[in-house]
Amino acid sequence: MAARVVLPADVGQAYFELHYQLKRNVDQTMAAAGLTLARAKVLMRLSERGPMNQATLAGLLGFAPRSVTETVDALVRDGLVTRKDCPNDRRARLVELTPAGHDAAELAAIVRLKAMEELFGSLSATDRASLVALLTKISTNLPSGEDSNVE
Amino acid sequence: MAARVVLPADVGQAYFELHYQLKRNVDQTMAAAGLTLARAKVLMRLSERGPMNQATLAGLLGFAPRSVTETVDALVRDGLVTRKDCPNDRRARLVELTPAGHDAAELAAIVRLKAMEELFGSLSATDRASLVALLTKISTNLPSGEDSNVE
Repeated sequence: MAARVVLPADVGQAYFELHYQLKRNVDQTMAAAGLTLARAKVLMRLSERGPMNQATLAGLLGFAPRSVTETVDALVRDGLVTRKDCPNDRRARLVELTPAGHDAAELAAIVRLKAMEELFGSLSATDRASLVALLTKISTNLPSGEDSNVE
Repeated sequence: MAARVVLPADVGQAYFELHYQLKRNVDQTMAAAGLTLARAKVLMRLSERGPMNQATLAGLLGFAPRSVTETVDALVRDGLVTRKDCPNDRRARLVELTPAGHDAAELAAIVRLKAMEELFGSLSATDRASLVALLTKISTNLPSGEDSNVE
């Protein structure tokens, strides 16, 4: 099927180049809805999992601690989250959605879903199934077996 | 073939989760070689394209201007790049590899290639060809047609 041998590095090139394009697309879609991708991710994660401290958020999202602080600061300013004392750890503070934050998280999830449909909906159902199977195969064979449930 | 319908959002989930895992893997491999991914990308881009200003670097790499400044600052401190005046624009400065920077860029390219072989080499040649074909199909059908040659 292939006219020439596709090397692992060719796959990497295609994968990472596409990621750059997809991320820019999602960024633009989020921006059009008045969100940034970072803020949307924090909102959606809090909506799915409930209040958590910033270190946990950083770990789940793969963000640097400084980025989480900046994003949470911005969300606090916009009235979408609050920081409250953690009952189990006096030094830690939990980040929690406000009612407006819950609405924003719902909007973000809808915008994200529409973006995914726009980006991946051009594939046929068969192609989508093949692609997920190939991605899963790569994921399963990764050197370090740990996986993380992160968008 | 698929037991259930794979929705576009399922593909997105698989794609972005895998990206998170791959990126962490490349980060770790680069760190083991004494590099960060950001620095390696700047070095490799300068090695491929020659001296350029920071705005061009930021655009090519999809980095925020502040991130490029921080990365270039670190590379200057380590003696791997220098900033020099741009002959055509008195306000702009070009970032240029030093001889040590050329060596570091070569190392980074080798480390990257090995990482790609480790991450994508688990697929058969047929699977690799299928995956690149599917990724190319997505890329071709993206809403905004502009593409950018970015790893």
